[in-house]
Amino acid sequence: MSRAVFSEELVAQVVEQFKITDLSKATIGQVVLVASELVRRTGIPFIRMDQGVPGLPPNQIGIEAEKRALESGVAAIYPAAEGVPELKEQTSRFLKAFVNINVSPESCVPVTGSVAGSFGAFIALNQREKGKDKVLFIDPGFPIQKSQLAIIGVGYEQFDIYNYRGQALREKLESFLKKGDISTIVYSNPNNPAWICLEDEELRIIGELATKYDVVVLEDLAYFEMDFRKPLGKPFTAPYQVSVANYTDNYIIMLSASKIFSYAGQRIATLCISDKLFNSRYPYLGERYNGVGIFGPTLINAILYMITSGCTHTTQFALAEMYKAACDGQLHFTDDTKEYARRAERMKRIFEDNGFYVVYDKDVTEKIGDGFFFTIGYPGLTSGELMRELLYYGISSITLNTTGSEQAGIRACTSRMTEELYPVLEERLKAFKEDH
Amino acid sequence: MSRAVFSEELVAQVVEQFKITDLSKATIGQVVLVASELVRRTGIPFIRMDQGVPGLPPNQIGIEAEKRALESGVAAIYPAAEGVPELKEQTSRFLKAFVNINVSPESCVPVTGSVAGSFGAFIALNQREKGKDKVLFIDPGFPIQKSQLAIIGVGYEQFDIYNYRGQALREKLESFLKKGDISTIVYSNPNNPAWICLEDEELRIIGELATKYDVVVLEDLAYFEMDFRKPLGKPFTAPYQVSVANYTDNYIIMLSASKIFSYAGQRIATLCISDKLFNSRYPYLGERYNGVGIFGPTLINAILYMITSGCTHTTQFALAEMYKAACDGQLHFTDDTKEYARRAERMKRIFEDNGFYVVYDKDVTEKIGDGFFFTIGYPGLTSGELMRELLYYGISSITLNTTGSEQAGIRACTSRMTEELYPVLEERLKAFKEDH
Repeated sequence: MSRAVFSEELVAQVVEQFKITDLSKATIGQVVLVASELVRRTGIPFIRMDQGVPGLPPNQIGIEAEKRALESGVAAIYPAAEGVPELKEQTSRFLKAFVNINVSPESCVPVTGSVAGSFGAFIALNQREKGKDKVLFIDPGFPIQKSQLAIIGVGYEQFDIYNYRGQALREKLESFLKKGDISTIVYSNPNNPAWICLEDEELRIIGELATKYDVVVLEDLAYFEMDFRKPLGKPFTAPYQVSVANYTDNYIIMLSASKIFSYAGQRIATLCISDKLFNSRYPYLGERYNGVGIFGPTLINAILYMITSGCTHTTQFALAEMYKAACDGQLHFTDDTKEYARRAERMKRIFEDNGFYVVYDKDVTEKIGDGFFFTIGYPGLTSGELMRELLYYGISSITLNTTGSEQAGIRACTSRMTEELYPVLEERLKAFKEDH
Repeated sequence: MSRAVFSEELVAQVVEQFKITDLSKATIGQVVLVASELVRRTGIPFIRMDQGVPGLPPNQIGIEAEKRALESGVAAIYPAAEGVPELKEQTSRFLKAFVNINVSPESCVPVTGSVAGSFGAFIALNQREKGKDKVLFIDPGFPIQKSQLAIIGVGYEQFDIYNYRGQALREKLESFLKKGDISTIVYSNPNNPAWICLEDEELRIIGELATKYDVVVLEDLAYFEMDFRKPLGKPFTAPYQVSVANYTDNYIIMLSASKIFSYAGQRIATLCISDKLFNSRYPYLGERYNGVGIFGPTLINAILYMITSGCTHTTQFALAEMYKAACDGQLHFTDDTKEYARRAERMKRIFEDNGFYVVYDKDVTEKIGDGFFFTIGYPGLTSGELMRELLYYGISSITLNTTGSEQAGIRACTSRMTEELYPVLEERLKAFKEDH
């Protein structure tokens, strides 16, 4: 007899209630609905490993700065299209302090979250040259970015990096780039969902090919400095966050406040555009937007401004203050986010003790680190089967195949884990093992 | 000898500095640059009638609610795609209280300013049926909305309503609609820039035709209840804000906090979608976004969520509280905004005393009211000439022809006018008159 927490019958009822045609192919939104409804009906707690939401309180330096800004009256005034000067300056300084690269304040542009940043960037990058209108994803990746392309009708290519780490990456990338229609290469580092970290050798390959084929790298640093294997997080001190910016001028870095400062609710991030790209002229852009077609000003004034007319004014001051405090050595944000690594380490051990294994388990030269996400497989189960089976045992997750991965397994997020849930996780996985 | 404030030579230098090819065709951004630079160079104050920015402090009820929300910890948590429940409920109630229409909370969706609302709506509305992919603007209007269409590659038609008020509107509208490719009709009421107010008879025509041709009306109520000729602003009491919602189910109303609560800096507004449209199914949308294609959920989850992943969390609580206070009769927002009418009345008199005239001077049955904007012409001068000439006399504005108007004249915004500037305006217009 099954030792599952929720009966197949009960889960089937809930699946029917939300008109989910196939639970093993459920989207993240549907998984969240099913988990919440099971909790509502039974009162039994769930181990929620599905959504990548911050599991820490919002950064207090941001909160205080935002309250001061609210008192200053700026809430009445439209924010400038290019962003608040203070935020632009502190973003530039933050990049110098923690990535050791030079991007001028002018080229640092606030956006309503990195989602708005990638949306705007995809538009500009795919309209910049005739025939260069496809995005290449180094997967696994963040599914929202592909959904954004459906809105604007831009195509994409993708591959799972699992078998193409290190030098193997060059040939694989070139097989796409040589067709000439790729405008943009996208990845996140550390990677959502696999938590792999691209190493310097790989970033060099990406950078060199971006220059060679005139392709722009959209580098998503949402989990900034969360490679906790290295002593990162000291301003103006090596080691630094690795970045493709060291190897090409064709880049846009996305820095988000959501995870590093636990500020996801306020929707604020910054696009950091290489100065060379910012000032490059694209006649094709100029034609479309009746201007000279300089990349940065076009992105700011003809695209981003037309989508949200600037970013929430007081939140810009909050982010400026958090960047400043981090640069001044007064806000040790990696000390806060390191909590996710502690959770990952404990959770992974419980999974491994019960017959599960980490899917993306190593980088080129090192064993994978612990952080916000990890990936889990179970012998003999596909992605969809494992995600569905874990739901019966009160554990929610998302399948790897919705992220462009070809490996069988699920993504687990550590952010909602709490002390009292570790014994529950252990008990449920033990039951899972005995039943499978 | 000219009695202008700034010499032609000085203005020419500034125009050259910003590489403006033709001052009489300057965009609003260029006008702002020129005015600011002239002030910087000379120290002489400008009468800034260019941008439509709030000229009042932000609403204190919103500020206090937002500070409380910051203290509650929601800044860490992603806002729900569909919006905070409290805001959805209060938006629905606000519509009942001040427009006397019924839209369920589910169909009221927060957006990052009305600009983000129209951008998302344009996408959904032009992808909802094959071949229905053009927008019809009842001009004059807000130039940003046309710029949004350039981003997504959607075409538009437009006409100046000046000669088509009242019953004449029907035939004119039908000449566009009968072609079958119009998806959306757009206008603002009261109108930016002309401050004309569509009357009930005209809204009935628009509504009836929207139903007949299955076209959706995107009704921009940015200047909500600012028709100060009527005793508006009392919750749940006639007279109400007029709306096309009384005549068709094919509508989306845009309600913005920017002007009515002087909250432009925080980028918050609400899309209010008719329940019938919200729940209508469009297979063409379903195909594109891999779903069933129900309008409301598709707009929220497949479009708006993919652009900003929700709206700034604390700002949603601010707007909810302001709507609530207005419905409860504790926030008399029209008492605040009436200040703009007082300014308009004084400014118009000074213009008229010096040979200028109001261009859009009447509605179908009434003389035009006083409010946030008004339009001004001068005998013998085109739009561009008048805008440029006024700059020499230290008065900045935008030309009517950039707003889709065929009339000669400029738009004047009253929001930045202050007490000490009235004698300055009088003196400068007197000088203008003597020179022309």
